[in-house]
Amino acid sequence: MDTSVFKERINRVRKTMAGKELDICILTNRASIRYFTSLRMNTAAFSILLISQDDIKYVVARLDVQRAERDCWIKDIISFPEDTPDYLQVLNDFFNQWNRLRIGLELPELNYEMYHYLHEKWPKAEFTNIADEMGRLRTIKSDAEIAIIRRSAHIADKAMQQALEAAKPGMKEYEVTAVARYVMLKEGAENPSFEPFLASGENSWLPQRYASDKVLQPFELNLLDMGGIYQGYCSDITRTFSVGETTPKQKRLFTDVLRVQQETIQSLRPGIRAGEVDFTARRAIEELGYGEYFPHLTGHGLGIDIHEGPIIDKGRTDILQKNMVLTIEPGVYLPGVGAVRIEDMVLITEDGYELLTCTKRNLIS
Amino acid sequence: MDTSVFKERINRVRKTMAGKELDICILTNRASIRYFTSLRMNTAAFSILLISQDDIKYVVARLDVQRAERDCWIKDIISFPEDTPDYLQVLNDFFNQWNRLRIGLELPELNYEMYHYLHEKWPKAEFTNIADEMGRLRTIKSDAEIAIIRRSAHIADKAMQQALEAAKPGMKEYEVTAVARYVMLKEGAENPSFEPFLASGENSWLPQRYASDKVLQPFELNLLDMGGIYQGYCSDITRTFSVGETTPKQKRLFTDVLRVQQETIQSLRPGIRAGEVDFTARRAIEELGYGEYFPHLTGHGLGIDIHEGPIIDKGRTDILQKNMVLTIEPGVYLPGVGAVRIEDMVLITEDGYELLTCTKRNLIS
Repeated sequence: MDTSVFKERINRVRKTMAGKELDICILTNRASIRYFTSLRMNTAAFSILLISQDDIKYVVARLDVQRAERDCWIKDIISFPEDTPDYLQVLNDFFNQWNRLRIGLELPELNYEMYHYLHEKWPKAEFTNIADEMGRLRTIKSDAEIAIIRRSAHIADKAMQQALEAAKPGMKEYEVTAVARYVMLKEGAENPSFEPFLASGENSWLPQRYASDKVLQPFELNLLDMGGIYQGYCSDITRTFSVGETTPKQKRLFTDVLRVQQETIQSLRPGIRAGEVDFTARRAIEELGYGEYFPHLTGHGLGIDIHEGPIIDKGRTDILQKNMVLTIEPGVYLPGVGAVRIEDMVLITEDGYELLTCTKRNLIS
Repeated sequence: MDTSVFKERINRVRKTMAGKELDICILTNRASIRYFTSLRMNTAAFSILLISQDDIKYVVARLDVQRAERDCWIKDIISFPEDTPDYLQVLNDFFNQWNRLRIGLELPELNYEMYHYLHEKWPKAEFTNIADEMGRLRTIKSDAEIAIIRRSAHIADKAMQQALEAAKPGMKEYEVTAVARYVMLKEGAENPSFEPFLASGENSWLPQRYASDKVLQPFELNLLDMGGIYQGYCSDITRTFSVGETTPKQKRLFTDVLRVQQETIQSLRPGIRAGEVDFTARRAIEELGYGEYFPHLTGHGLGIDIHEGPIIDKGRTDILQKNMVLTIEPGVYLPGVGAVRIEDMVLITEDGYELLTCTKRNLIS
């Protein structure tokens, strides 16, 4: 994407800052930083983005500085030494420059060490949490972002399809997720967007959210949830399948949940509240008598983060808008029978929705 | 491992608590929690372990509670609702029970939200950072842990060997790491122990710490760093290779760094200080004239965490002891020539060391 895209994003931050009368924002959330810098970092790397009305500085570890200078549109790159306790000393210029200051931070997930450091250095500063505002800037996707997300969803589809083909009775759960992960990476995914899991039989209704060495067998439902990160953007898809025969109860559960998922997707359009979408799914599941076995949200937005706005859950008032991307994933976890969840990625369009994931939704793979 | 193993670990925590006069420890570090509970969690899951002299309680998300009840040796499992802002309300019993309290926390990485919550609920409590003490409990490995780590190192070797065989001119960096990751997962690794990377040519000396779509070609050095997690324990190995011809400068750099790495490994024995081991590597690299191109530590301990004690770096005073497991990984990053790093895992034995990784160390794969 062109540098102008990132400058426009920074302008939106500066408008938010003006509205909240902030002098400086210190961003530490990985998704925020990628959104504004576009720079891919190793998942273990830490960096900080400083934004004021006139200035923008990117603070990275010494090991990352040459690459940042080569690849990042921001030209003011500062490096901190990774191996000294006082690694934030590079911020001292700012501490000396101002005495009293209003600072925006992405607070909830900021680590204690950094919060404490800032608090000591700027004892008179007022700290304001801007995590929600920064997250909200990312909920409506641009055409360029949607093109990347389409490719990310396509990679998830491809991996899901090859994993479903590979799954056979006698295989271990992790052998199937290994295939799914390999296909995503081979197709250019940077990383999985979360730890993929295949939960079979009892593992599905407990639920066990990782792939174990349990062996797949007939008369069990298998739930495979996975996704990749392509050029920074996450995909997410779930299918439920069997590697052989199923019981009538399992078949009925599958048909029921699939119908609820499809009806919920069909309710999507700009202008509807997230809570209403959730209610569509939740009421249908309650009417089927499975109410107490649907223990999670109906869906979530996704983009650079695997979970971002809008969250499709009870009472949520966010209004769906054109060019939001989200999942719809109702699930029912019936002890002794099995679990069924079917999850697709959906783009909100001018007058409705468009499915971004398309792997077949049938019980026998 | 038997329940008695975990009870003995908890006893060591309680001794630490007695020495520091703490009433309760609230552990949030993933490695600590796995060490004491043995329970594998999805990488996105959050949990809390509460330890007092008489009591131990494990606090997990509602979705994880049934599995924790089935699989964990700790029988007092409390669940918190994942979808409410006040999800820590389950700790209220503790807040009501005591007024003034000395609490141990793993502070530096604790998120602000939780710190703030505890601070508000227990305004009169004294908080003490016990992160270092908790980490130190894990540095000497038991025989059972060493057996698991051997298997983890073996998986890393196998993946490295297959990746080296697969690497050919014209392949993209990420296609090679995809093979390495797949082999690890297929062999039973839970996850990679960090984001593996292959950095070729310029990417190696920048350095770029992820695998990109850059194509491999002759006359470039390729640095592949990877590892897996097997039954909770990390492996970590690096090899430098070429997919064709190399220049005399590249050959010499390779031979030099390999010799430094081997000499550093040969210096390992119980009783030596970590800083001395680092000095062995650093002095040798300086004598070769590469001093300014060795920008990182010489090695690090590993176990449940990919980086834990002892850290083999400048001035570190930790004394190596029997049954510590660590890496030795000197590296030289020469602009215009290439980077060479060779990393192996080593077990400190009664009278010296034992190599845990054994993939051939030669420039042409």
